[in-house]
Amino acid sequence: MQQIIDDIAAQMASKTDKGKVASYIPQLAQVAPEQFAITVALPDGAIYSAGCAKTLFSIQSISKVFTLTLALGKLGERLWNRVGREPSGDPFNSIVQLEHENGKPRNPFINAGAITVADIILQGHQPKETLAEILQFMRFVANDDTISIDEKVARSELETGDRNASLAHFMASFGHFENPVDSVLGTYFHHCSIAMNTIQLATAGLFLANDGVNPTTGYRVVSPKRAKRINSLMLMCGHYDGSGEFAFRVGLPGKSGVGGGIMAVAPGKASIAVWAPGLDPIGNSKLGTQALELLARKTGWSVFGQ
Amino acid sequence: MQQIIDDIAAQMASKTDKGKVASYIPQLAQVAPEQFAITVALPDGAIYSAGCAKTLFSIQSISKVFTLTLALGKLGERLWNRVGREPSGDPFNSIVQLEHENGKPRNPFINAGAITVADIILQGHQPKETLAEILQFMRFVANDDTISIDEKVARSELETGDRNASLAHFMASFGHFENPVDSVLGTYFHHCSIAMNTIQLATAGLFLANDGVNPTTGYRVVSPKRAKRINSLMLMCGHYDGSGEFAFRVGLPGKSGVGGGIMAVAPGKASIAVWAPGLDPIGNSKLGTQALELLARKTGWSVFGQ
Amino acid sequence: MQQIIDDIAAQMASKTDKGKVASYIPQLAQVAPEQFAITVALPDGAIYSAGCAKTLFSIQSISKVFTLTLALGKLGERLWNRVGREPSGDPFNSIVQLEHENGKPRNPFINAGAITVADIILQGHQPKETLAEILQFMRFVANDDTISIDEKVARSELETGDRNASLAHFMASFGHFENPVDSVLGTYFHHCSIAMNTIQLATAGLFLANDGVNPTTGYRVVSPKRAKRINSLMLMCGHYDGSGEFAFRVGLPGKSGVGGGIMAVAPGKASIAVWAPGLDPIGNSKLGTQALELLARKTGWSVFGQ
Amino acid sequence: MQQIIDDIAAQMASKTDKGKVASYIPQLAQVAPEQFAITVALPDGAIYSAGCAKTLFSIQSISKVFTLTLALGKLGERLWNRVGREPSGDPFNSIVQLEHENGKPRNPFINAGAITVADIILQGHQPKETLAEILQFMRFVANDDTISIDEKVARSELETGDRNASLAHFMASFGHFENPVDSVLGTYFHHCSIAMNTIQLATAGLFLANDGVNPTTGYRVVSPKRAKRINSLMLMCGHYDGSGEFAFRVGLPGKSGVGGGIMAVAPGKASIAVWAPGLDPIGNSKLGTQALELLARKTGWSVFGQ
Repeated sequence: MQQIIDDIAAQMASKTDKGKVASYIPQLAQVAPEQFAITVALPDGAIYSAGCAKTLFSIQSISKVFTLTLALGKLGERLWNRVGREPSGDPFNSIVQLEHENGKPRNPFINAGAITVADIILQGHQPKETLAEILQFMRFVANDDTISIDEKVARSELETGDRNASLAHFMASFGHFENPVDSVLGTYFHHCSIAMNTIQLATAGLFLANDGVNPTTGYRVVSPKRAKRINSLMLMCGHYDGSGEFAFRVGLPGKSGVGGGIMAVAPGKASIAVWAPGLDPIGNSKLGTQALELLARKTGWSVFGQ
Repeated sequence: MQQIIDDIAAQMASKTDKGKVASYIPQLAQVAPEQFAITVALPDGAIYSAGCAKTLFSIQSISKVFTLTLALGKLGERLWNRVGREPSGDPFNSIVQLEHENGKPRNPFINAGAITVADIILQGHQPKETLAEILQFMRFVANDDTISIDEKVARSELETGDRNASLAHFMASFGHFENPVDSVLGTYFHHCSIAMNTIQLATAGLFLANDGVNPTTGYRVVSPKRAKRINSLMLMCGHYDGSGEFAFRVGLPGKSGVGGGIMAVAPGKASIAVWAPGLDPIGNSKLGTQALELLARKTGWSVFGQ
Repeated sequence: MQQIIDDIAAQMASKTDKGKVASYIPQLAQVAPEQFAITVALPDGAIYSAGCAKTLFSIQSISKVFTLTLALGKLGERLWNRVGREPSGDPFNSIVQLEHENGKPRNPFINAGAITVADIILQGHQPKETLAEILQFMRFVANDDTISIDEKVARSELETGDRNASLAHFMASFGHFENPVDSVLGTYFHHCSIAMNTIQLATAGLFLANDGVNPTTGYRVVSPKRAKRINSLMLMCGHYDGSGEFAFRVGLPGKSGVGGGIMAVAPGKASIAVWAPGLDPIGNSKLGTQALELLARKTGWSVFGQ
Repeated sequence: MQQIIDDIAAQMASKTDKGKVASYIPQLAQVAPEQFAITVALPDGAIYSAGCAKTLFSIQSISKVFTLTLALGKLGERLWNRVGREPSGDPFNSIVQLEHENGKPRNPFINAGAITVADIILQGHQPKETLAEILQFMRFVANDDTISIDEKVARSELETGDRNASLAHFMASFGHFENPVDSVLGTYFHHCSIAMNTIQLATAGLFLANDGVNPTTGYRVVSPKRAKRINSLMLMCGHYDGSGEFAFRVGLPGKSGVGGGIMAVAPGKASIAVWAPGLDPIGNSKLGTQALELLARKTGWSVFGQ
């Protein structure tokens, strides 16, 4: 395994087209584009890394997998009354679908869906308390107490977050929110600004590869059924309107973030985190996707066959 | 396995809400709604059936998997210049997406995409010749020379096929078609009217469960890579705007048809065909989906975990 | 008046950017782009022309005003159950609005609406009979028995009419049509292919400028109320998604055709026809619009004030 | 004239279906639905009223005509780089069109367009200063120094204005705004909350009926050309997706507000204000529209003919 990922890291280092770093959040635009990291965590506890696997990056939308998990813990299957579970066929920040479907987001991984999930988690509390709860959960699943929020990124998001503010006010106009729009947005922007490295992120995803139990701690995070379902949502919707492409090329449930990270799950086999800040036009990590495609090919981990 | 599917068949027989038989094609509207069949075909050649597994039904859109396979054989990856591979987020017969994307269908399993695939297969030939080729291919993968087209259904489709005619003319207006619209539509309506039973259909899908080789004949149908990719397309787009729901509940690549059939693939493990003519509001077999959900739960075959 | 339109013709002759002749119908693409004609017909019978006012051109969508008038005569206000009367905000051949509104066209002047009007006029007759009726009506309002259909243009339209065929089949799929799609399309393509000159066209529009009575013959064509309503529809919807622009710049009810003609009505004052085959990007005559803008300014005929 | 409007007022009083008072702004929901007022102001200074013509009501979107006039005074025709001038075909608060056209509103009378106009007027000033300027302009055109903003309504709008906040943030996300979103929204909500009676409103519209000059003061407000153009915009877009219907039935440029007011202009002949708080499903005053239809019929003022 170490050999495989060293090879992949070497191949990625030699690529000339590394995509474009996200520019719409000023803090993210400053990240050096040539960085690359990959970590593979196995259910038996083994962890393999290549590249700058200890460098922190902004996990951005990958956090949506964990807030969804938390929200399902609070609301159970009733959550699906407020968020759909179909791919949207639209970009991550599209508002067209919302108007056509009365403010109900198509799935929890487009921005509108994750903002709704933030509203669900808040349950009348202050954003500060809720963010503490989210952070605690991230530290629990990653088995690492040092994980925290990058306040500079969070501020940067708040200042440039008009599109997300638009989505939130739009849903609020249907009376769908239980908390003030500003609290929901504050919570959302902050959980997107959690900083992690690939080791932490691969560890955090292990419960999804291991029928709901985090093997490093032995704690059950979710039921086997719920782990499967979160995996299915990641495969169907984890890469916005590039989800079909990711399934076609990689064949693993995964969730990307505009910080350049991707967390992928090979059920029963491994949890993987990659990071390469350059994005493709849809907003998914360019080299990250290529690295996962190589890894899936070399390991035969695709869920669609050898 | 026989025990499992007998149990499933018994459970399905006791359901009172069996959905509604498709009404927009007169021939399909006459099918008795209480029928149910399931067949599981394993790579080792074993075949298990319950219910009326020898009763022929109209495979309808399930045929799209096989015409796609044929078209990929002719055009290779260039096929993707003419058809996308993302879920559409829209109903099977939506034309909105086509207008917004200049007549390029989102994927090969919505009607517009499959009509485009029919144009690709035609390659200037007469529909009759092309249909003979499609039938020959179906007989080859199903290892059964008796498979044929139900001409009554085909005629019924032609007469009520205004929506598909609209899609075809719309794409033709962008200059996308190489063959006359009427030839393309004739081919499409006829391959949707192929009649099969669940034994034939489960056998026909075996190459997708077995890395591209049909184990009953030993013939390679497609490369392992292509088998995986077709499976990924089935998972992402095989149930129209209910694909997310099917992945969430069943967790297997599958393709449904409005005749009430579903073909599903558990990569490396089995090919499955179910048939129950009653549909849910989206147009997928209601009991068929429930039967597959039960089967996946009892066997642990979901691609998303045990 | 003669002085005014001679000036306008002279100004138009000096323009270097005359727009682009419609290319999607081969017969229209052959028309020489530098031609220009204008005719002003007054209720007192006076007729003023400049340019090639006796040259025949394809009236195309201008015919929709007359088929609407005929259909209102047959069905009365019940016509509005099948066609709306709001501007569409979409291009003339858009199908998106149709899908969102269950196959009911927004107004009678977009293609889908005019195709529906053709279905209304047919009333179970053969296209040949209906076309004879339409021609007879055109000759009646234009007071000229020589008006006829350009069969070459009609054939050219039929051969390249996939977009209109798509619209027609789409509406038929909702069960909205009373006649076969091919009959409806044949009728539509042929009435769009009527050839007229600006003298004939300005005369044909006089009843709309004169409270429903054609002053050259003395015959009442429609009631005063209906004349006003047809004028309102022309102003709101007569130039597709350029209707607002035309109202803003010209301020007269008018209907354009991709043959380069525009018929405009100054209620109580004049009926005007212009022809210049070069189109703007939306599909309206470029110089025709400019000529009408000049005319409205010089005469103070805008309905919106001096 | 007095006789005509007394008759109309009497007829309206006898109607049983008066529509529904706007409910989404709590302050508006409290207005008594049976009230009715009409005022006709003639260029010669004569003013005729019937009903409660001195009762103040919230002019709401009618204010958009005046902010547009102000903004045109500041920016001239460059304003059209930021706002279109086509009917939208969508409801007043639709966001779909904005996404498809990169945040540029279709016209200045849908909410998104009027919010953009508010941004144009602000020019870096404080909302307070800008609102003082708007009020001063309203007093100038209405020739009445008592006109002011109903602060209760403004507050009510701010509290329930999520849909408008969504539109504003959406446009801001394209970088289209020169002022902070909150300032723009504050300005917009306040100018919509101006309270006027029908006498004031009919007087305020006189410059549009009189080629740009307010005859009661003798002051020129805009050029004749601009008066015509504002009238054309009112006719095309003044009643949202009911603009075609209003043109069809009434035939006058007009602008409605959800407070139940309508200001209409008969170019060269009269300025008219009606008020009846009950709305039709599209959001236009139900009895107000009927009253104007009657008035146009009895006076022959329709711009489309006698």
